[in-house]
Amino acid sequence: MRRVSLQQLNWEQYQADFNALAAIGQNAEGGMDRLGYGEADQAAHKLLADMAVEAGFEVKWDGAGNLWITRRGEEDGNPDFPPILLGSHMDTVPNGGKYDGLLGVMTAFHAMRLLDRVPQRRTVTLIVFRCEESSRFNCATIGSKLLAEQLTGEMLKRYVDKDGISAYDAIRELGGSPDNLYLERQYIKDSFGFIEMHIEQGPVLNDRRTDIGIVSHIAAPHRFRITVEGAAAHSGACPMDARQDALTGAAEIILAVERLGRQYAEKRIVATVGKCDVVNGAMNIVPGKVELYVDIRGIDREVISEVVTKLHQEMSAIASSRNLRIDPAILSQETPVKLDDDMAEFLVEQCLKNMLTFLHMTSGAGHDTMYMAKLTRSALFFVPCEKGISHNKEEAVADDAVQNGLRLMFSTLVRICTLDPQEEREKAEMDRMLLEEAYQ
Amino acid sequence: MRRVSLQQLNWEQYQADFNALAAIGQNAEGGMDRLGYGEADQAAHKLLADMAVEAGFEVKWDGAGNLWITRRGEEDGNPDFPPILLGSHMDTVPNGGKYDGLLGVMTAFHAMRLLDRVPQRRTVTLIVFRCEESSRFNCATIGSKLLAEQLTGEMLKRYVDKDGISAYDAIRELGGSPDNLYLERQYIKDSFGFIEMHIEQGPVLNDRRTDIGIVSHIAAPHRFRITVEGAAAHSGACPMDARQDALTGAAEIILAVERLGRQYAEKRIVATVGKCDVVNGAMNIVPGKVELYVDIRGIDREVISEVVTKLHQEMSAIASSRNLRIDPAILSQETPVKLDDDMAEFLVEQCLKNMLTFLHMTSGAGHDTMYMAKLTRSALFFVPCEKGISHNKEEAVADDAVQNGLRLMFSTLVRICTLDPQEEREKAEMDRMLLEEAYQ
Repeated sequence: MRRVSLQQLNWEQYQADFNALAAIGQNAEGGMDRLGYGEADQAAHKLLADMAVEAGFEVKWDGAGNLWITRRGEEDGNPDFPPILLGSHMDTVPNGGKYDGLLGVMTAFHAMRLLDRVPQRRTVTLIVFRCEESSRFNCATIGSKLLAEQLTGEMLKRYVDKDGISAYDAIRELGGSPDNLYLERQYIKDSFGFIEMHIEQGPVLNDRRTDIGIVSHIAAPHRFRITVEGAAAHSGACPMDARQDALTGAAEIILAVERLGRQYAEKRIVATVGKCDVVNGAMNIVPGKVELYVDIRGIDREVISEVVTKLHQEMSAIASSRNLRIDPAILSQETPVKLDDDMAEFLVEQCLKNMLTFLHMTSGAGHDTMYMAKLTRSALFFVPCEKGISHNKEEAVADDAVQNGLRLMFSTLVRICTLDPQEEREKAEMDRMLLEEAYQ
Repeated sequence: MRRVSLQQLNWEQYQADFNALAAIGQNAEGGMDRLGYGEADQAAHKLLADMAVEAGFEVKWDGAGNLWITRRGEEDGNPDFPPILLGSHMDTVPNGGKYDGLLGVMTAFHAMRLLDRVPQRRTVTLIVFRCEESSRFNCATIGSKLLAEQLTGEMLKRYVDKDGISAYDAIRELGGSPDNLYLERQYIKDSFGFIEMHIEQGPVLNDRRTDIGIVSHIAAPHRFRITVEGAAAHSGACPMDARQDALTGAAEIILAVERLGRQYAEKRIVATVGKCDVVNGAMNIVPGKVELYVDIRGIDREVISEVVTKLHQEMSAIASSRNLRIDPAILSQETPVKLDDDMAEFLVEQCLKNMLTFLHMTSGAGHDTMYMAKLTRSALFFVPCEKGISHNKEEAVADDAVQNGLRLMFSTLVRICTLDPQEEREKAEMDRMLLEEAYQ
């Protein structure tokens, strides 16, 4: 097979479909308001389902409200040809961008459409996950977590939006049944594997002018709320040497977090203080209490632990030198996910065939792939977004990048759909023998 | 005259009056809610006026709503014996303490009552200033500013409380007429001088176990809002070296402000960042924009300018090293006030007579005395408050400290009320001659 040409991509159809979906939930400023399980999200699901039916695919919604779009292959039902799964999401953050999630869904959907023109032995299923963004319920990736048994209906009753509606009720309202996902879970477990495409949401590919990022690990956030307590005092009357200023102590913590992030950057750590609230802050009061929200991510639990331990040491030193109380509370502590090397290898192979430049990278952001990886061999790849801007109406992706992503997805899909299981088994056997030889 | 004894202070009456007034506007937590021109403030004014009438004093409210309590002296009307003025305020911050303001008013009022027992040649007038705290209208010392023509009725229309009521309307509602203060202003200008007692609101006297602080200067705040702009980014996806984090830049500014405050502490500078707001701050976003509120105070304009200039230099360096935009906007720029040495000398003299330890100090906080000083020779003295805590329901003043303040106020008042103008003139002539000699 040669590089997929622009002509083969059916670009006009792609743009028409993308634009029709991107128009749903667009606000007056041009930002996207398509919150998970909300009206606009539901409308987008319905439109996509209509498009899929029109394309001749089967559609259904599972108990979590995830949309399943299936294109049957010639060997459907043959256990030697288990289905290949694709997926992403269509919900957005408030006033979000057009591409986050939707681009991955459209790319998978169109790659499936393009299979009209090539032999397809294996069944392909696209799963459009529900409520990937945490904005509405303060809980991310609900659809994929339910599939992977990382959430239950009971737990969803505790996640409530600003209007008091729980995620559980939102799913029930749409006719879902969040604990009834046994068959779907089994289908995923028995599949060939899973692939997601997403925009990078960071500047790496853009800065390095690289077409594709093949994700090896998805970093997990360690999150804390750090409360710094000193003593509020009058900003005019309290001399500098009599102060217990919670904000200057907090400033040292903010810089310590950054310093640790930089120091461990080579080990794939990013560390951020995203919020800093001075409690009862006023112009004329030396701050008595400050709350910081810290997010530390990495791909290796031990490295994360090391950074967290060092941060604790720095905080102890700050507390004692400034006579403050510093109290960190853990908000979440997730486990980094290593993705599947064999699945990534398919992507590498197709990048080479399509003359796409690529690099292996870490995803700092969480994705539904994290939970699919608990059930099947999974891969995630990125296309660059302009200036790395995301979660923002300024989010933009160049046509070239969209085409490259579609090219890679289609090409990989063709490769996997035409793969001979016998050939696979032989390859596995060969690998095993090479490995044994290497140990002798 | 000898040290004023505890018996002479009529301590039980003092406590009864203080407690009756301190009960007005007290909330369930024990904090004071007596906002300027509000109901509780008005009730306190009425009760104090009743007490004053009962004590045989004259009372009136001026056009700004300030309460004037006058005890006529034997030489009332004789220009050789101009009246001596005392003053403080009774309004509080929300959930404030009992002593801020009220202690000064009660001390002046009781010093006047104690004059029953001694000859009083000079008339004494206590002015209870209205709305000293900025909490309600975001404008401090309204009563004294109106007297000193630092505010007009027209300007007061622009200061509006959270319910949309302007300071102008609040005054009119109580029957006031903020621009009609000509006679009162002239009375102050023609007076012998003005004295205010206040709690320190800082820890200096408490820490040094000193009875009295005699204020030589009232520092003036330079206030800025500093906007730090970088680029918001995904906290997981944006690598450490690609960030333009507005909060880490802000943290460096917070520490620079503190460092400059410490460096210039000997020159009576205090420097504070009281608020730090991350605009659209969230756990998973590298902060794109932060607003800091900075308050720098000193007693010398040039020193303040020097500190501000250095802060600007530091901010330029931070902006260029971190690729941020840092934009300081001046919110207020007041002039420090030097108080009157002769009036302070009366206080020193009476401290010595009463065996009170004292020190000359700066007031970092603003007071009504700042505006009285524009009209007449003015003095301000402090008594310690426990741990320096103020603007807070934990505010406390030891009985000893209250008694020391009352002792000093009464004793100074007796001294000034019995002062012979001929003696004063001779003293002034003597000073002049000594000065001339020194220059020859």
